[in-house]
Amino acid sequence: MYVINNAGLTQASLPGLVHQTLAGSGAGLKGLSVWRQTISPGAATPPHRHDCEEVVVVSAGRGELHIADGVHTFGPDSTLVLPRNVNHQIFNTGTEPIELVAVLSMTPVEVVLPDGQPLPLPWSS
Amino acid sequence: MYVINNAGLTQASLPGLVHQTLAGSGAGLKGLSVWRQTISPGAATPPHRHDCEEVVVVSAGRGELHIADGVHTFGPDSTLVLPRNVNHQIFNTGTEPIELVAVLSMTPVEVVLPDGQPLPLPWSS
Repeated sequence: MYVINNAGLTQASLPGLVHQTLAGSGAGLKGLSVWRQTISPGAATPPHRHDCEEVVVVSAGRGELHIADGVHTFGPDSTLVLPRNVNHQIFNTGTEPIELVAVLSMTPVEVVLPDGQPLPLPWSS
Repeated sequence: MYVINNAGLTQASLPGLVHQTLAGSGAGLKGLSVWRQTISPGAATPPHRHDCEEVVVVSAGRGELHIADGVHTFGPDSTLVLPRNVNHQIFNTGTEPIELVAVLSMTPVEVVLPDGQPLPLPWSS
């Protein structure tokens, strides 16, 4: 399957967050997952980490990246670079939805909470 | 460097193609490159392959993916899944620019032409 029509992909959600897996192990990939997410104003991802690198391309919205011990603000048209195994959390602190594509160097993606407990995801990754 | 303002990134080009490296080895990554490209109507990428997986998220425009021995059309809001070491080429066959984000599971990315000769890229990847 070389071409996927994104409109036909299923959606999943977490509180304030809508998710589509654009491509991952289900598309035959071995070491890439590509997700598209919308984060509502006032919402956030869970705090988490994973044993792979992640890059987040933000096309709309404003927020904060909480990572390690720092807080970094970002606006639309930003790229977030998240090293392997560093706890992070993305907050929408603006008034518009955050639209992002997240890329991870693993598939399926195994996510853990900051205390090391697994975080089951409500989507195939 | 956790947050990159994309507007400050340098641009590079190939004929009919404008490129920005959003993140890669220059941002400290070990196994991910993320590129943003615009392909003009009538233009195409060079035919090429690389020893890594690639996912292309197309947000606007229409075209054809030529891969292996097949031709696959795509429209806006599509995802292209390109296996490791398979020759491919993306053509803009529409009337609007193709806007895409390409994700590769390698950094820097070593690209070769179908005949196996290296294809030097005019950007850091």
